[in-house]
Amino acid sequence: MIIFNSEYLKDYTVKIFSAMGCPAGQAKIAADCLNQADLRGVDSHGVARLSGYVRLWQLKRLNASPEMKVIHETPSTAVLDGDLGLGLVTAPHAMKLAIEKARIAGTGWVAVQNSNHYGIAGYHAMMALEHDMIGISMTNASPLVAPTFSKSRFLGTNPIAVAIPALTQPPFVIDMATTTVANGKLEVLQRKGMDAPFGWTQDKDGNPTTDAFSLKKGGSMLPLGGDREHGGHKGYCLGAMVDIFSAVLSGANFGPWVPPFVSFLEPPQNQVGKGIGHFLGAIRIDAFRPALQFKKDMDLWIHTFRNAETSAGPQQVLIPGDPERELCIERQKNGIPLHEQVVADLIELGGIFGIEFIADAETE
Amino acid sequence: MIIFNSEYLKDYTVKIFSAMGCPAGQAKIAADCLNQADLRGVDSHGVARLSGYVRLWQLKRLNASPEMKVIHETPSTAVLDGDLGLGLVTAPHAMKLAIEKARIAGTGWVAVQNSNHYGIAGYHAMMALEHDMIGISMTNASPLVAPTFSKSRFLGTNPIAVAIPALTQPPFVIDMATTTVANGKLEVLQRKGMDAPFGWTQDKDGNPTTDAFSLKKGGSMLPLGGDREHGGHKGYCLGAMVDIFSAVLSGANFGPWVPPFVSFLEPPQNQVGKGIGHFLGAIRIDAFRPALQFKKDMDLWIHTFRNAETSAGPQQVLIPGDPERELCIERQKNGIPLHEQVVADLIELGGIFGIEFIADAETE
Repeated sequence: MIIFNSEYLKDYTVKIFSAMGCPAGQAKIAADCLNQADLRGVDSHGVARLSGYVRLWQLKRLNASPEMKVIHETPSTAVLDGDLGLGLVTAPHAMKLAIEKARIAGTGWVAVQNSNHYGIAGYHAMMALEHDMIGISMTNASPLVAPTFSKSRFLGTNPIAVAIPALTQPPFVIDMATTTVANGKLEVLQRKGMDAPFGWTQDKDGNPTTDAFSLKKGGSMLPLGGDREHGGHKGYCLGAMVDIFSAVLSGANFGPWVPPFVSFLEPPQNQVGKGIGHFLGAIRIDAFRPALQFKKDMDLWIHTFRNAETSAGPQQVLIPGDPERELCIERQKNGIPLHEQVVADLIELGGIFGIEFIADAETE
Repeated sequence: MIIFNSEYLKDYTVKIFSAMGCPAGQAKIAADCLNQADLRGVDSHGVARLSGYVRLWQLKRLNASPEMKVIHETPSTAVLDGDLGLGLVTAPHAMKLAIEKARIAGTGWVAVQNSNHYGIAGYHAMMALEHDMIGISMTNASPLVAPTFSKSRFLGTNPIAVAIPALTQPPFVIDMATTTVANGKLEVLQRKGMDAPFGWTQDKDGNPTTDAFSLKKGGSMLPLGGDREHGGHKGYCLGAMVDIFSAVLSGANFGPWVPPFVSFLEPPQNQVGKGIGHFLGAIRIDAFRPALQFKKDMDLWIHTFRNAETSAGPQQVLIPGDPERELCIERQKNGIPLHEQVVADLIELGGIFGIEFIADAETE
């Protein structure tokens, strides 16, 4: 691992997106979204993914300077056509619109069609916090997950994020894939040559497996819960709901038709919609209760749960968002560790645009 | 088991609620909600629960003729004070309000405080379907579930329901507890003297257990996913979100302060809100896309997933709502089976009000 200063990585990302043709404001917000993923420990969705976006742009599957357009709206809803832009750009744009609508109507809900991968779901949801609003964010994604009783890869890891403000306590932030684990955790086991627990994946015939490489052998990820006996059908329900909200409400591709993020896979034939889809929501707290009362109650909620009696083992009870926030503080101070492979990829990427990536930072 | 005609049970339920003092319209909708639970196979939330509501009413913990009041609203939101009424009454009332708001504002979101147990979550969500709307329903509940890494019972089974209309296909209906399993499934194992799979519950010290009676020995249910390794922290996130939406947004009791449904347990001291809380939502489809287009895409979604390739084993891939709908058709035709104990309880209940329950139907 090589450690990099967070600001250095962000500046480099802005340069790459700008070189690709992103308008300045869009390059900045897209870079911030990747940077927050690195700071919060979602390494798979940070700067490591930068070259993936560039490759999609090279294939013209991604538009660096989209003209985003609201194609339908009501007082509390809108559909945004993302013009095949970066999801890192279309989703924050949609979230801003949701926040504006919530200011007037109490809540705002924006479905996005014709978009691309939007980074970490939590980034967009957290935009609502400073407005004393609850933020909600979901997206569909390349199909890797099999519905319960099936071996067809029909759903993405389809994440849900919910960010809720508190008063003196840090905000409550859920950011979770609707699968048992994220793909990144499988990759960690692969590198270590370790087996995966049952319930994470199944093999190509739909049998339970502990093979951490099963996904690369035609297997599929399992919905949260794992098999039917352990509630996997509920994870399937959640992933399906995210797919429908993100894509059937917006007019994007759904289920097996969702275009892959990786550039070496072709998008499926006979598209049923436009690009991939997101669903963003903002709920103004004082559309229900005075924000101060609500946030005091959230403080009590968080304090109570954090002090729940712990079970055997050293682990404290956590509030959603705790681990990411702690890591963020640590990485802002000590830097972001990147794999040698990611570093090589970033250097090569710079070569395309004549931008230098300096990898002489500390090595761990 | 004794088999009863569905209409007979519903009529009896109306009589009991009426005798308790429910206005006619309210008694009817409350009875319909319990009846739908029986028809859809959620036996724990059907007529078997009728005596529980009556016992709460006898203790004055439930108001049979509530004056429900909107205490705050915006174009797309409202907070309803349920006046300690049956959740079976306050939730449908709130859902109607959400539907009215969605007609004008595109979406409608109603948080309910000062309520009681609301039956099956799916009943309320499904009210939106005939209006070409998506219905959403959630509620908090008596604490039985431990947050990840804890042995404190701080959350209820906190269900989420989402009902989405299709065109020629039946609707897509999620109705799920945010725990690995519902309590009713543990009771089935208890009756059969069988062990529970790992991941369903933990013992009073927070250790994994297969003891189906663990909950009765001070243990707790586990959030969807089970332990941390299998994603249980995500189930904890979902249960927490339901608690906050239902109760912190509405001003009801949350977490460990949620009053118990069972009359033999006293509500916790120092209440932090009023009664239990619900959160109901309605999303008008054509606030996003023309309803016909959306419903055609839902038909394609459902058709595609139902025909996904099955894994080893005889089980077809299911669409959320399939099992409940099939059972509903069967039970409408062949009747609803009730345990002898439930029947005895219903006869005794009738005695309180001088209403006869006739148990001479077919015995199985």
